[in-house]
Amino acid sequence: MHAISLKAPYLIFVGDEARRAYVKTGAGLVQWRRELCAGQLRLTADTADLGLPDMTIEAAVAAGVKSVIIGTATIGGALPASWQAPLAAAAAAGLDIVAGLHTRLADNPVLSAAATGSGARLLDIRVPPAELPVATGKNRSGMRLLTVGTDCALGKKYTALQLEKDMRSAGVDVDFRASGQTGIMIAGRGIPLDAVVSDFLSGAAELLSPDNSPGHWDVIEGQGGIFHPAYAPVSHGLLLGSQPDAFVVCHEARREQVSGWEHYPVPAIEDVIARTVAIGSLTNPNIRCVGISINTSTIPASERGDYLAGLAGRYGLPCVDPLVEGTAAIVDHLLSQFRA
Amino acid sequence: MHAISLKAPYLIFVGDEARRAYVKTGAGLVQWRRELCAGQLRLTADTADLGLPDMTIEAAVAAGVKSVIIGTATIGGALPASWQAPLAAAAAAGLDIVAGLHTRLADNPVLSAAATGSGARLLDIRVPPAELPVATGKNRSGMRLLTVGTDCALGKKYTALQLEKDMRSAGVDVDFRASGQTGIMIAGRGIPLDAVVSDFLSGAAELLSPDNSPGHWDVIEGQGGIFHPAYAPVSHGLLLGSQPDAFVVCHEARREQVSGWEHYPVPAIEDVIARTVAIGSLTNPNIRCVGISINTSTIPASERGDYLAGLAGRYGLPCVDPLVEGTAAIVDHLLSQFRA
Repeated sequence: MHAISLKAPYLIFVGDEARRAYVKTGAGLVQWRRELCAGQLRLTADTADLGLPDMTIEAAVAAGVKSVIIGTATIGGALPASWQAPLAAAAAAGLDIVAGLHTRLADNPVLSAAATGSGARLLDIRVPPAELPVATGKNRSGMRLLTVGTDCALGKKYTALQLEKDMRSAGVDVDFRASGQTGIMIAGRGIPLDAVVSDFLSGAAELLSPDNSPGHWDVIEGQGGIFHPAYAPVSHGLLLGSQPDAFVVCHEARREQVSGWEHYPVPAIEDVIARTVAIGSLTNPNIRCVGISINTSTIPASERGDYLAGLAGRYGLPCVDPLVEGTAAIVDHLLSQFRA
Repeated sequence: MHAISLKAPYLIFVGDEARRAYVKTGAGLVQWRRELCAGQLRLTADTADLGLPDMTIEAAVAAGVKSVIIGTATIGGALPASWQAPLAAAAAAGLDIVAGLHTRLADNPVLSAAATGSGARLLDIRVPPAELPVATGKNRSGMRLLTVGTDCALGKKYTALQLEKDMRSAGVDVDFRASGQTGIMIAGRGIPLDAVVSDFLSGAAELLSPDNSPGHWDVIEGQGGIFHPAYAPVSHGLLLGSQPDAFVVCHEARREQVSGWEHYPVPAIEDVIARTVAIGSLTNPNIRCVGISINTSTIPASERGDYLAGLAGRYGLPCVDPLVEGTAAIVDHLLSQFRA
């Protein structure tokens, strides 16, 4: 994955995805690398709006765009049929196509032919390294923090990126470690854990945050949710291999059902803390929760303060919305816990 | 996987593997399909002995053997260099090579050339179906039993096969469902769960035991161990997707360290029961433990009775060694629990 290098500026392809929670790849690029995003391409009027200028492929070419980045996450990862024509037009015009889908771009014959003709690259960010090890379970030097969640698509990556920023501001030697496609696009490196063969999942997670100097922190992007009916095994493997000293629970205010699996309730934060400690203590008995990160975009601004204060009192931990007030309160608590 | 069809009789290739726990593929074939096994090929004097006649490739060809089955499980699944020459000789002589390694036989150029010349097939039992679904988490009709373990390689598959046999004898409509390479070789069908990409792990497990008639039982072969530092995610995904009504814990008497991960202790049976119920109740709230299956080959025969009686008293569940007395006691308890 280290060899992947993206060409800017980007056109973010939103397809026909109307659900905001499913365009987290595009939204993440806008949030953390806005200066590299020239525009967005939306196929229908009700497609989610990332706040970028709308552009056709032709306009993007004229504006000097170099890569089209598919900014949505589809369940299971297949390429919708309606996307093929515009993406093929972009590839034929010489733009790289960058995606994090389970289906490989190069396996699509129309896209492949268009790219071959123009010299455009079809980059699959989700393809893991070829030779991954089985986990050893052996402890590594350096410190690690993992973000975990009550569900998918509610802020685990954002929280990790904000923690990296705030820890660096506090003078900590720190690195963000990306475990999913958007994170890899932002960081320029990482391992797409959900695409790793199950036997090597924990081993890949060990590789993601290698030995480091004693005072160094890796802030590792979480995946899935430990109570998710489909993706909990990915969360489990990432937790075992990361061997985190600390974790932060991420949650979206008022989300009550698992997104896309509405017959399952979102678990309580205390249950996620307890299960994460129970599973994580196998490879790091000192694991502890150091904060709660809430996406409060779903509640009125006037209720935010009381909501966060209520959670902080209930759990005895700093509770923040990382996109509103940052994560400095969690960083302060973390450093007070581990400097001793 | 359903298209795989093996040609008998077999020569079981043991390589240079001295550890009995790592030749479970070969041992399983001898136990459940002895009539199809003509002989074994061992490369060194201290290689594990499956109790079959020792044969060279030449002798096997003369005896009418049609397939060489690699009977060992190597960590990570790579093909040891010392195995290449004898396997290539077998392929050159027209024998199919059947393996459950992570490395694909066809990727080895020497083996591939030998097979191409003779028309022999290189069969990789561990390659999963191409189009697997993401788990739905929705309940299916019919009943399911899953075997789980305190570690790898201690009897989960044997227990499931014996349960199938004893349930059928008791008049139950039952099917063994194979989740690993040896099980697939025995059953002739199944999905190799440890080779499935992580995002689709629970979905593959759902596919393994589809909707069935209300009184039908699937007995599902377990994988890994829910406290294993490398393979717990596989166990987690199989548990969620299987949605078992009942499970049986498998353990080896006196095994105290995780095999191959000796810096980890084998978990207590009560901890495996509690963790299995905790995780499994997400997709089936009625999950319960119905028995304990012990590999007692590691203790003196004179101690067996007291050992099993002690466990039965401690856990209030039938405890058996499936290879000594069968699993009828567990089947009786299961049926008493679920006939009500």
